Amino acid sequence: MKAKRGRKGATRKSGRGGARPKRAAAKPLAIGIDLGGTNLKGVVMAEDGVRRHEYRVPTEATRGGAQVLANIVKLVGMLIESEGGTEQIRGVGIGTPGFVDGDGLILGGAENIPGWKGNNMFKPIVSRYGLRATAGNDVTVAALAEAKYGAGRGIANMALFALGTGIGGGIVINGHVYKGTHGMAGELGHIQVEREGLPCTCGRRGCVEQYASATGIVNNAKILCAKMSQVTPFVELVRMHPEQVTSKVVYDYVAKGDAGAIAVHEYVCDHLAMAVGIVLDSLPPDRVVLGGGVLQAGQIIVDTVARHTGKYCWPQIRERCDIVAAQCGDAAGVLGAAALVFDEMGG
Amino acid sequence: MKAKRGRKGATRKSGRGGARPKRAAAKPLAIGIDLGGTNLKGVVMAEDGVRRHEYRVPTEATRGGAQVLANIVKLVGMLIESEGGTEQIRGVGIGTPGFVDGDGLILGGAENIPGWKGNNMFKPIVSRYGLRATAGNDVTVAALAEAKYGAGRGIANMALFALGTGIGGGIVINGHVYKGTHGMAGELGHIQVEREGLPCTCGRRGCVEQYASATGIVNNAKILCAKMSQVTPFVELVRMHPEQVTSKVVYDYVAKGDAGAIAVHEYVCDHLAMAVGIVLDSLPPDRVVLGGGVLQAGQIIVDTVARHTGKYCWPQIRERCDIVAAQCGDAAGVLGAAALVFDEMGG
Repeated sequence: MKAKRGRKGATRKSGRGGARPKRAAAKPLAIGIDLGGTNLKGVVMAEDGVRRHEYRVPTEATRGGAQVLANIVKLVGMLIESEGGTEQIRGVGIGTPGFVDGDGLILGGAENIPGWKGNNMFKPIVSRYGLRATAGNDVTVAALAEAKYGAGRGIANMALFALGTGIGGGIVINGHVYKGTHGMAGELGHIQVEREGLPCTCGRRGCVEQYASATGIVNNAKILCAKMSQVTPFVELVRMHPEQVTSKVVYDYVAKGDAGAIAVHEYVCDHLAMAVGIVLDSLPPDRVVLGGGVLQAGQIIVDTVARHTGKYCWPQIRERCDIVAAQCGDAAGVLGAAALVFDEMGG
Repeated sequence: MKAKRGRKGATRKSGRGGARPKRAAAKPLAIGIDLGGTNLKGVVMAEDGVRRHEYRVPTEATRGGAQVLANIVKLVGMLIESEGGTEQIRGVGIGTPGFVDGDGLILGGAENIPGWKGNNMFKPIVSRYGLRATAGNDVTVAALAEAKYGAGRGIANMALFALGTGIGGGIVINGHVYKGTHGMAGELGHIQVEREGLPCTCGRRGCVEQYASATGIVNNAKILCAKMSQVTPFVELVRMHPEQVTSKVVYDYVAKGDAGAIAVHEYVCDHLAMAVGIVLDSLPPDRVVLGGGVLQAGQIIVDTVARHTGKYCWPQIRERCDIVAAQCGDAAGVLGAAALVFDEMGG
């Protein structure tokens, strides 16, 4: 199938020559796709962050990389249809777990989608719709969303730690997303904060992900509660019913003032603060944004990490960086994917 | 004293109006100043790195910040005189220990110069010579020198670890020096690689500087040799004459194949590799450059760090980054300071 014509007959090749009537330039739009483990989210968005159309379709990760890619292509088609053509659409941005290079090639790191590595995400979009495509790690693009539309507005240099099942990271430098030459920048969840620490899924030990992700919080709760001398209701729950413990449960008890839960909370926040401190000394972001599902526990995580971070970086740097909660919520990935189009292809 | 006129009568205000004969544009030049503990180095340099004039004057650090600043201003004057005026000179770049902001204000971190903090380095240069000025941390600008003229040529994203008495760091992103909003980027020597490690001059513990700087290597040699069961000639020397041990001595024994010295070498390189791995996961530079006086020991440090780094970052990232020795030597600071002028003010 060759390049599709939009409803108004404009082709993707506008500007390549031929007579074309002048008129007021239409507002450029971008398609953003967020590849989640369960759903693909898609959006048509203007540069100011206003969303025009949104769809959600199943990812079907278990059916393998080729099916996931087909679903992405289908979702892009739905978004184009809803917009009535590709005329105003500057390009397609995709946020994906793992690593993707500048040509759209999946380099790995998204182990929950069998056969995802080695796929090229751009080719079918370019050949089917005649749209340019770009991509980035899902948390990398989420950082761009926070910088443009959320907790990092007006900030030139920003870092995001997304605390979910694991920990992802994203870096914004001089107002633009920083992906690194091969799209691998910002693996902040694998900053090692204990040399001989807990084993990580990446094969190493002591990565901050093993402490401050939802999984890490639960694991550390079990480890710490087994050793605690003061048996609080939380400690008792963890010892008796470890299978009931989630990061939400930990923070429910923190909210109740349970000393055992608070000790776990301080321990994990202290470990996260060390990773934040390392990022501060290396990069000096002007703002560190903490996001992801774990942050549903609220401001207490931000405050505690902020309190501990000074131990792990230069005071001159610490006093020029604030640490805040993310604002874009679940939409960060899809907004960031669309924002990537404007960031890289111009507004 | 008002703006000084150059030998050919060209003033710093050329281009601001008034008749001025047109002629072939002269090659733009930059003045670079490297503020060392003992000497100030100064250079007039073209963008291709060719040096036209070089001077060296005593820093007089012990006489305090005001004297050091006066010496810098004097050195800039000498370089202008040697060039016959300011006509071709695009600006003055200064590399300084510690932190300096975008307005030339010293924010701190160079404790060996009393009264250095709070000085503004740009004002006397602008008012006296009518030249624009810029500045950066000395290792930050050295990283730019390596990227432009040394081990990082052709590399978009690069990080430098400078192993001297301490450890400094510098980051180049997309071919440009990255200073962070407040000029504090790249404090890579204070990445913590042991949570409860050796106390650092910065007040924290376990910074990589305490392991892989010249000072750190010597301290760790003493600590490790005190515990070693195999008493090699090196171990004996360290135990009997600890005052004779320098990082050079350690590496002289490494070169002789002394098992005790090699154990120290492996230990410190392993710690440095962890910091390199953290930088790789965060930033993905395409190349990490190791420089500073400690690297006089040769390629063995590079090779050993390269061997250990894979333990501390994603394999996909490690395989796309090489680790090499610096090439600009002692000149990196002054070349980088001049290069900063072209990097920030255009060529």
